[in-house]
Amino acid sequence: MASSKAQAGQTLWAKMPKANAELFALTYGSLVTELVRDYEDPIEVNAQLERIGHSIGVRCVDELLSKADSSNLGSAVTQCGNLRDTAEVVSKVGFRMFLGIQAEVGGYSQDQRSFSIYLQENPLSTFVELPTIGDEQSSSSPSGGLDDLRKLKYSNLYCGVIRGALEMVNLKVECTIVRDTLKGDELNEIRVELKEVLSDGAGDDYKEE
Amino acid sequence: MASSKAQAGQTLWAKMPKANAELFALTYGSLVTELVRDYEDPIEVNAQLERIGHSIGVRCVDELLSKADSSNLGSAVTQCGNLRDTAEVVSKVGFRMFLGIQAEVGGYSQDQRSFSIYLQENPLSTFVELPTIGDEQSSSSPSGGLDDLRKLKYSNLYCGVIRGALEMVNLKVECTIVRDTLKGDELNEIRVELKEVLSDGAGDDYKEE
Repeated sequence: MASSKAQAGQTLWAKMPKANAELFALTYGSLVTELVRDYEDPIEVNAQLERIGHSIGVRCVDELLSKADSSNLGSAVTQCGNLRDTAEVVSKVGFRMFLGIQAEVGGYSQDQRSFSIYLQENPLSTFVELPTIGDEQSSSSPSGGLDDLRKLKYSNLYCGVIRGALEMVNLKVECTIVRDTLKGDELNEIRVELKEVLSDGAGDDYKEE
Repeated sequence: MASSKAQAGQTLWAKMPKANAELFALTYGSLVTELVRDYEDPIEVNAQLERIGHSIGVRCVDELLSKADSSNLGSAVTQCGNLRDTAEVVSKVGFRMFLGIQAEVGGYSQDQRSFSIYLQENPLSTFVELPTIGDEQSSSSPSGGLDDLRKLKYSNLYCGVIRGALEMVNLKVECTIVRDTLKGDELNEIRVELKEVLSDGAGDDYKEE
């Protein structure tokens, strides 16, 4: 099942109209910069990025489902009987189709209510460098500006996108970036935790294991 | 010469890492939305989009020149003896390489100091609808909010990108969106006007005709 999802992701990615990934990264960078300028507090910037991602995720899931349907890939994508299937679709279809990258999934909790998505590459953060902890300038900064920037979760858009997309299929989740190559980690890890299966019927055959 | 530039654009586009054009459009939309929220005045939003575009354009030209060089396409791209050559590079190489679209160029002024770039498609404005002049809500809006939005030049980023990119090759230009499919025009037209050939040597063999 996993490999058919990966195949579906590849097929859908091939069909999507493309833009230059670097221009995309620069535009995203401009968005983050605007938010940092407006809100100053990086915690608030993280929240705003998550909010913006949520509304993008809501659009993405529509796109994913309709493109999958028109490509006769509906069953590979929509047959999600449990969180593992959903995790596979998010990582193998979603990240592939929208970013052209392969995401891995794993780290399931014992109760099967949370998992991690691992990204070796992060197209959002091309060209980006955050101040590192050793930066003298930042630690001595009285305004805390640079210092605070370390609290910035630059790619927090992802968390919102995943939350928004899964909400549309009746799964209420919370996402957190727990590892970040921008902060020196060897890969990017997004933790996804299922909070609730929303009940309007569409999630009826979804098993909470 | 024109066709070799188109070919160079196609070759470079093929080599660029790609992102999903719809995700790019949604992210750009989020940026515009943030700016509208912050500045309220659409004229100021236009200026901000132009400013952000400028700093993206500065990066883009570096990318274009280095990718052209490493692809042995340097001569097709950098041999710009006059504004016509430059216009061809902007439209046939730049727009192709960064947006995957074919832009046309024309409408040269008699003094050869201004030209237009025509875009049939506008990847920035996928999903976007601006309020139209007939919208009752907007014309009766006391705050002028929606009414004002008609002054928004949604794709003004382009103007900044072109200005920033050409500044790096010592051409000071001003760009204006003069036709816009979002406002009901049949195509998008960006007017580019040469204001000054900056002199730090790099533009020495550039002829003002």
